[in-house]
Amino acid sequence: MKMTDNFFDSSDSVRHNRPLRFAKTVRLPGSLALERGGELAEVQVAYETYGALNAAGDNAVLICHALSGDSHVAAHDEADDPGWWDIAVGPGKAIDTDRYLVICPNVLGGCRGTTGPSSIDPRTGRPYGQEFPTITVGDMVEVQKRLIDELGIRKLRAVTGGSMGGHMVLQWAIKHPDRVAGVIPIATSPRLTSQALAFDIVGRNAILNDPNFRNGQFYQDNPRPNVGLAIARMLGHITYLSREAMADKFGDDRHRPRTLSSDFEQTFSVGTYLAHKGDKFVEIFDANSYVAISMAMDLFDLGSRPAQLAEQFRGNKCRWLVISFTSDWLFPADQSREIVDALIANDAQVSYCNVTSSCGHDAFLLAQDLPRYGELLSAFLANLGGEAVSARAVPARDEGGRRLEYDLIVELSDPGHSVLDLGCGNGDLLKRLQQRGHGTVMGVEIDQDAIISCVRKGLDVVHADLNDGLSSFGEGQFDFVVLSQTLQVIHDVEGLLTDMLRVGRRCIVTFPNFAYRKLRRMFSEQGRAPESPGVLKHKWYNTPNIRFLSIADFEDYCAEREIHVHRRLTLDTEAGREIHDDANLNADLAIFVISR
Amino acid sequence: MKMTDNFFDSSDSVRHNRPLRFAKTVRLPGSLALERGGELAEVQVAYETYGALNAAGDNAVLICHALSGDSHVAAHDEADDPGWWDIAVGPGKAIDTDRYLVICPNVLGGCRGTTGPSSIDPRTGRPYGQEFPTITVGDMVEVQKRLIDELGIRKLRAVTGGSMGGHMVLQWAIKHPDRVAGVIPIATSPRLTSQALAFDIVGRNAILNDPNFRNGQFYQDNPRPNVGLAIARMLGHITYLSREAMADKFGDDRHRPRTLSSDFEQTFSVGTYLAHKGDKFVEIFDANSYVAISMAMDLFDLGSRPAQLAEQFRGNKCRWLVISFTSDWLFPADQSREIVDALIANDAQVSYCNVTSSCGHDAFLLAQDLPRYGELLSAFLANLGGEAVSARAVPARDEGGRRLEYDLIVELSDPGHSVLDLGCGNGDLLKRLQQRGHGTVMGVEIDQDAIISCVRKGLDVVHADLNDGLSSFGEGQFDFVVLSQTLQVIHDVEGLLTDMLRVGRRCIVTFPNFAYRKLRRMFSEQGRAPESPGVLKHKWYNTPNIRFLSIADFEDYCAEREIHVHRRLTLDTEAGREIHDDANLNADLAIFVISR
Repeated sequence: MKMTDNFFDSSDSVRHNRPLRFAKTVRLPGSLALERGGELAEVQVAYETYGALNAAGDNAVLICHALSGDSHVAAHDEADDPGWWDIAVGPGKAIDTDRYLVICPNVLGGCRGTTGPSSIDPRTGRPYGQEFPTITVGDMVEVQKRLIDELGIRKLRAVTGGSMGGHMVLQWAIKHPDRVAGVIPIATSPRLTSQALAFDIVGRNAILNDPNFRNGQFYQDNPRPNVGLAIARMLGHITYLSREAMADKFGDDRHRPRTLSSDFEQTFSVGTYLAHKGDKFVEIFDANSYVAISMAMDLFDLGSRPAQLAEQFRGNKCRWLVISFTSDWLFPADQSREIVDALIANDAQVSYCNVTSSCGHDAFLLAQDLPRYGELLSAFLANLGGEAVSARAVPARDEGGRRLEYDLIVELSDPGHSVLDLGCGNGDLLKRLQQRGHGTVMGVEIDQDAIISCVRKGLDVVHADLNDGLSSFGEGQFDFVVLSQTLQVIHDVEGLLTDMLRVGRRCIVTFPNFAYRKLRRMFSEQGRAPESPGVLKHKWYNTPNIRFLSIADFEDYCAEREIHVHRRLTLDTEAGREIHDDANLNADLAIFVISR
Repeated sequence: MKMTDNFFDSSDSVRHNRPLRFAKTVRLPGSLALERGGELAEVQVAYETYGALNAAGDNAVLICHALSGDSHVAAHDEADDPGWWDIAVGPGKAIDTDRYLVICPNVLGGCRGTTGPSSIDPRTGRPYGQEFPTITVGDMVEVQKRLIDELGIRKLRAVTGGSMGGHMVLQWAIKHPDRVAGVIPIATSPRLTSQALAFDIVGRNAILNDPNFRNGQFYQDNPRPNVGLAIARMLGHITYLSREAMADKFGDDRHRPRTLSSDFEQTFSVGTYLAHKGDKFVEIFDANSYVAISMAMDLFDLGSRPAQLAEQFRGNKCRWLVISFTSDWLFPADQSREIVDALIANDAQVSYCNVTSSCGHDAFLLAQDLPRYGELLSAFLANLGGEAVSARAVPARDEGGRRLEYDLIVELSDPGHSVLDLGCGNGDLLKRLQQRGHGTVMGVEIDQDAIISCVRKGLDVVHADLNDGLSSFGEGQFDFVVLSQTLQVIHDVEGLLTDMLRVGRRCIVTFPNFAYRKLRRMFSEQGRAPESPGVLKHKWYNTPNIRFLSIADFEDYCAEREIHVHRRLTLDTEAGREIHDDANLNADLAIFVISR
C-alpha cells in the first residue's frame, strides 16, 4: 500500500488545518429566512476568488463544493496549500483562471468561515450546536446568490460542482436560471438513491449517538464526538471509491497494514487507511456541520418520478453539460441520465457524457479521468462565451460516400426544422445543419471522443446506446430524426425504428445496400461473404456491421408495417451520383424519408 | 413502505428471541487447538436436524449459516418459529427433508448455543468477552467436522451455505474433501473484497469504540454496547440489499417514515427500517460474537491470485455447484467465478450459474429467485445420489439438422476423449457423449434455463458468455472443444477461435453455410437478405445471427492463420446426407475439425 498516494484522494478531502490565507469574508445584508422555517439573523460567507472579472462582467464561474469541502478550491500560489480541485482549476487548466473569474464559497452550515453550527448564535452568545436550524440546499444557494449580488455580478458564465456541489448547481438552474448561462452538474443526482441516503443515516446515527455529542454542545469541553464523526467519515470514504479502486489499493497486501497511532482497528491495510481518514477528519471538521450539511443533502429531492423532475426544468434556457462516471455507484450514471432526460423533455440545450472511469464517485477529483472530462469542461465553457475552441485535428472521412449523402440529407430538410442525429459521430452533419440556420439540432452518440468533438463544436450531444431506444424523447419532438449509416450496427432494429418514428415527424434512414451489384456478384459467384469499401469494408469475422439488408428488404419492412415512405434516394457513392434504374442492384447506399 | 415485508429480509436475520426448542447440544470430546494459536478447553455445539439418515448413511446434508444466523435453518413443525432458510429447506422443498438428513449447527463463536465469547471461560468462571481467542473459518469447520464424527456420519452427501456459510463450504472441500460428495457454495468468495472488508471494519470500530463495550465485559452490567452493535447491523443491512431493491422498498415514500420507539434517526423511511433492524438485532445478538465471527470471515483468505486459489483445490474430487446472484455487490459474481476458474484449472467437476436477481446479496434467502436456484439445488443433490431427476419436458429440436450433425460429431471422437461443448444448450450432445462413455465432458452455456437442464442431466456446465473468451481453461485441457452452430452468434470470432485452438487439442466447429445454394439464389436473384429453415430462419432485423460466413470463407480464414484442417464434413441437412460435390454451393451445414 502506497500510503502517501492514499491520503488525499477523496471527493471531500480537506487537506489542511491552517487558516485559509486567501479567503475573504462578507457579512450578507439582512437576515436569511430558511426554506424549512426559522431564520438566521446574521450570515457571513467565506469565499475565495481566482482570476479577474472581464470588462463585460460575464466570465465569472461559481464552483460549489461537496459535503466536507471548503472555499479553497485551488492553490493561489506555489506556497499555498493545495486546493481540493487543483487538477481542474488554475491558469491554463480546464477551468482556466486566466480566462475566468472563479468564485468558490464555503457553504452555509459549513465550518470553514461561513455561518454554521459552530458559529456563535447571536441570541445566546454561544455556538448554535444542534440549535442550528435545519438548512437545505436551497438555503445554501440563496446564500451563494446573495454573495454574487454583493460581488456585483449580474450573470454567471457557469456554475459547476460535483456530488452535493452538483445539487447546488441544479438548484441554481431551477431558482435563478436568468443568472447563469451554463450549468455543469457533475457526478450528481436529482436526489440521493435510497442506498446513499441509508449510508448517510448510519453515519449521522454514529455521530448523534456518540455519548460525547451532548446535543451538539461540545465546543467548550473535551472530549468531542470524535468516534462518531470518524465512523461517519470512514463509511463515507468507502462509498467514494469503486470496488475496483479499493481492490487495486488494498488487494495485494491486505494483511500488511502500516501501523498508525489510532484507536481504530488496524488488522488490515484498508483498516489503517480508514483509521487515518477518520482520525484526520475529526481534527478539521465539525460534527454539527457534518450532521447539518449531510441532512441538507439528504433532504434535497427534485422528485422520484420523471414528470416531477421535468417540471423542475420547465422552460429552462440555460445551456447544460451533465457529466457522470461509469464506476460511480454512490451517484450512479442513471441518475445523471434522469437529469438529462428531464431536460430533453423540456427541449433544453443539454450535452451529456458518462465518462469511463474506474475511480468511483471520487473520479471528478482525481487526475486519472481528467483528460476526458477536463476537455469537456473547457470546451463547454469556451463555447458559452462564443470564444474560439482550438479544434483538434479530426481526420475528415468520406467512407460510404458521406459527403454526397450529407449534401442530400441537408437538402431534405428546411432551415426551420429541428433535427436529431442518431449516431452523430463527430457532429459533422449537425454542424452543417446548425451553420445553415437550423435552430434546434441535437446528437446522440456512444463514442466518448466523438462526444468531446461535438462539444468542441458547440453542439448538444447526449451519450447513449441506440440499442436502449429513445425513451428520453417525446412523441414528435423533432421535425427530423436522422439515422445515417448506423442501422446496420443496431441489434434492436425494430425497437429503434419504432422509436424513431415516434420521435420524428419525419425520419431519414440511410444504409449501405447489401444487394449492391458488386457485393451480390462476390457472393453469388465466389460464395464468399461480401465486403466493399466504406462501411462494408470489414471481414465477416470482425465487421461492426451485424445487420445486412438490401433496399428491397427495407421496402418490404416499411410495407409490412405500414410505414409511409416519402422519398427514396439511391446512390452510387463511388461514382458520386444518384441511381434511378434497378436501384437494389445498382445503388450502394439508400436514403429513405419515412414516417408513421 | 410495507413495513411487515421489510422486517425479515436479510441474509442473516434472526427472527426469534425464544429458546430454540429443537436444538440439541453436544459437548465435543477433548479441547480444540485453534488455527491462529491458543485453544478452547471445552467446546459445545448446538445444532438442529431435519429428516432422517437413510440406511446407507449417505444422505446427510450439512448447512452452514451466515454471519448472524443460527442452527434454526427451518421450522420443525407448524407451531415452530420460522427458520432463516424456510424457503429452501423442508419436506418437498429444494433441500428436501423427506430425502435428506439436514444438519445445521450454530458456528463456533456464536451466541445461540455453540461455544462463543458469551460462554463461561472455564479458566476464569466468567464469560470470555474479548478474552475469547481469535477464531477462523477453519476452526468453525473443525468444530462442524467433529460434530459430524460424533453423529457417526462418514461422508456427507453435500455441504452448502451462503455468504460466510459459503466460506465454510469452501473450507470443508479443502480440508475434508473425502468427507463430502457435493459442495455447494452460494453467494460467496475466496475472500472478501476490500470493499466488503472495509464495511466490516467500520462496523467493528463502531462496536469496539462504543464506551459501553468495556473490552467485552458487559455481561454483568448494563448498559450494553447497543449503539455500536446497532450501527454495525444497520451498515450490514445496506450491503445485503441491492441499490435496486432499496429503491423499490423506500423510493416512493421516502419522506413518510413510520415512527418507532428508537433512539436512532427516523427522518426518512429507510431510517426507520434501519433503526428497527438495529434495535431488534441488539436484543438477540452478542456484540462479542459479532466481532469474533466477522473477524473470522474477514481473515478467511484463499489467496488473491488465481494460482494461489487453484492450489487450494488441487486434486479435488468432489462435485461442485457454485451459485451467485447478478445483483450481489457484497459478494459479486466475479468472485464465484474465481472459485469456478480455480476448480476448472484442477479439472474438477463443477457447474456454475450466476442467477439473475434484483435482490442483492440477500437473494439466496428470498423467495423471489428460488424457482431458479432451488431447481439447481434439488437437481444437483439428486444427481449426487444417483437418484432419478424428474425430467422437465424440453422440446426436442432438430433445427439446422442437429440430429445428423450430432451423429457425426460423436463419431469424430473416441470414448476416451474429454470434450468441452461451447454453447452446449440443454446438454443433448454432452449427454450422448457421456452415455457413450466419455469420462470428462463439460459445457459452457449462457442461458440459465439451459444450465438447469444440464444440471438435471447430471452434467457439468459453466455459465459464461463465449464473447468473454475461454481464459478459465488451460492450454490443451480438452481433447475436443466443440462449437456447434454457435459461431454465427459470436461477436469476437477471432478471440474465441484463437482460445478454442489453445484449449482443445482438436476443435470441432460447425456452422450454417451462408453460401448455400438456396440462400445464394435468394440473394442474387431477389436481392434480399437470405433466410432459411434452421438457424438462418430469422429476418434480417431480428436474427440472433450476426456473422455470415460461407464454407469458403472459413477455409480462407484457416489458411490465412495456418490453422490445420483435419476433417471437413459438409451436409445437406434437409436431405439428411453428406455433400461431396461443390460443398460451398450445395451444403447448408459444415463441420470442421481443426487444430493449431
